[in-house]
This record gives sequence, C-alpha cells and structure tokens, in this order.
Amino acid sequence: MKQVISVLAVGLLLGATGQTLAADTPESLVKYRQAVMKAIGGHTGAIASVVKGETSYGPHVVHHARSIKEMSGLVTDIFPPESNYDNYNKTAALPEIWKEPAKFKQAVEAFQAAAVKLAEVAEGGDMQAIGGQLGELGKSCGGCHKPFRYEE
Amino acid sequence: MKQVISVLAVGLLLGATGQTLAADTPESLVKYRQAVMKAIGGHTGAIASVVKGETSYGPHVVHHARSIKEMSGLVTDIFPPESNYDNYNKTAALPEIWKEPAKFKQAVEAFQAAAVKLAEVAEGGDMQAIGGQLGELGKSCGGCHKPFRYEE
Repeated sequence: MKQVISVLAVGLLLGATGQTLAADTPESLVKYRQAVMKAIGGHTGAIASVVKGETSYGPHVVHHARSIKEMSGLVTDIFPPESNYDNYNKTAALPEIWKEPAKFKQAVEAFQAAAVKLAEVAEGGDMQAIGGQLGELGKSCGGCHKPFRYEE
Repeated sequence: MKQVISVLAVGLLLGATGQTLAADTPESLVKYRQAVMKAIGGHTGAIASVVKGETSYGPHVVHHARSIKEMSGLVTDIFPPESNYDNYNKTAALPEIWKEPAKFKQAVEAFQAAAVKLAEVAEGGDMQAIGGQLGELGKSCGGCHKPFRYEE
C-alpha cells in the first residue's frame, strides 16, 4: 500500500494532470518494452560503431556492455501476457511469444547468456574478442527477432 | 598499432566489404553520439514509466539508473570539435557547444552529478525519492538540450 501511495504521489509530482493513472495497460507495457529495447539498441549500436572501426571510443565499450547486461535480465519480465494485444500497428511482438513460451524462454535465455559473456569480454578490453562476442549477441537478438517479431 | 590491427580485423570479421574504414568522421561521431543519447532516452523513459505509475516495474529502476550513470561519464567525450559540422539536418548539436566550452562543460557536469545521484537513490528503492531525482535529472538534460540543441 505504501508503494502504491508513493507511486501516486510521484505521479502527481511529475505533473499527471488529474487523470486516472492507468498502470500496466497493454499500451503502457508495450511502451515500456520499447523503451528497454531502445536502450539495448543504443548500446549495441554504439559498440558496433567501435568494433567496426567507425569510431575510436574503445574505452566506452565496457560501459555499454555493462548496461546491456543490466538490461538483459529485465527482458524476462517485459513480455507479460497482457502485452499481447495482437495488433501489429502497436507492437511488433508476435502472439507466438505466448503460444510457444518454452521456445521463447530459451531464446531470451540465450540473449541473456550472450550479454553476460559480452560484459565479461568487454572488461578484458580485447577489441577482437569483443567484436566476436558482439556477433554472438547479435545472433541471440535474431533468435527472438526472427521467430517472434513481426517482420517490418 | 596492435589496437589498430585488431580493430581492422574486427571490421573485416564483421563483414566490412573491402571499403576503407572511415574512423571518426563527423558522420560516424554524430551517429555514435546519437546511439548514446538513444540509450539514455530509453532508460529515462523506462524509469519515467514506473515513477509515473504507468507500469509497475519498480525493481527494474535500479538497472536503468545504473546504466544512465554508466552513460553519463561518456558524455564528456562525445562532443569532439570534429563532430560540429554545422548542419542541422544531420545533428541537432548547436555550434554554441564549441563556442562556449566552459558553459557546456558545466551543463554536462550537472547531468553527470544528477545521474550519479539517481543511481544512488535508485539503490535505495524509495520510489518517491527516485521520482524526485528523475525530475532533477530531467532538469539537467534540459541544461544542455535547451541552450545547446537545435530546437526541433
């Protein structure tokens, strides 16, 4: 209850203008998921820039890799059944996610393992190893994005 | 030299198809900067979703806050003079960044301090305090985005 009250208080603080706060609606869940994916996309794009030699921000890589690892753990939570509203205009997540939960879970876990490994490799600073592991991470992204995401 | 070679090797590994790798061009620097900003935007949007009560991903907040802290340190590096190519079609970064370096540095440091504080507050888990500190972070974003970013 305390948590609910403080969330409401923060909602008011941040300027929610009197309308009812709709928590965990399909729309808000999808929006949250897209924010997580946006963050992951930013970090992976930044690492790719370095390992492809487009920029020389080598010392940044470990910070992006740590952030991807932070995010990877969250992916388990961001596909609740409520967020399947079977409308490709609003989410690219296919209903197969919830029809084949074991297969989906396996794909998510592969991504998480690749992210943990990337953070480890990034701590080492060997740019060639980082590039190789970024490739592995990319494959694991595809492990979900191909079977479980609407083709854009 | 060793680093240059391994970056090149990774470039080849990742499928650069024989063209010269152009490192640290204005375009690649801007693209990198936008990837960092995309990540920060994803994380702040995700925290905002929680503190505004749109989603109940409270336990995720600390992971986003840590990632923002990781990113905040990088912001010092992502505005090299080479990335000022005074073309608002390709970057929203205003030339004032390089004309008023002391003022810009101060604004970046305010963001970094707010990000460090947000990560600390997020570790504590008090959602109301997190909301307050997210507000402070938002102000510090504005500290750069208002004077130093092209109005979109």
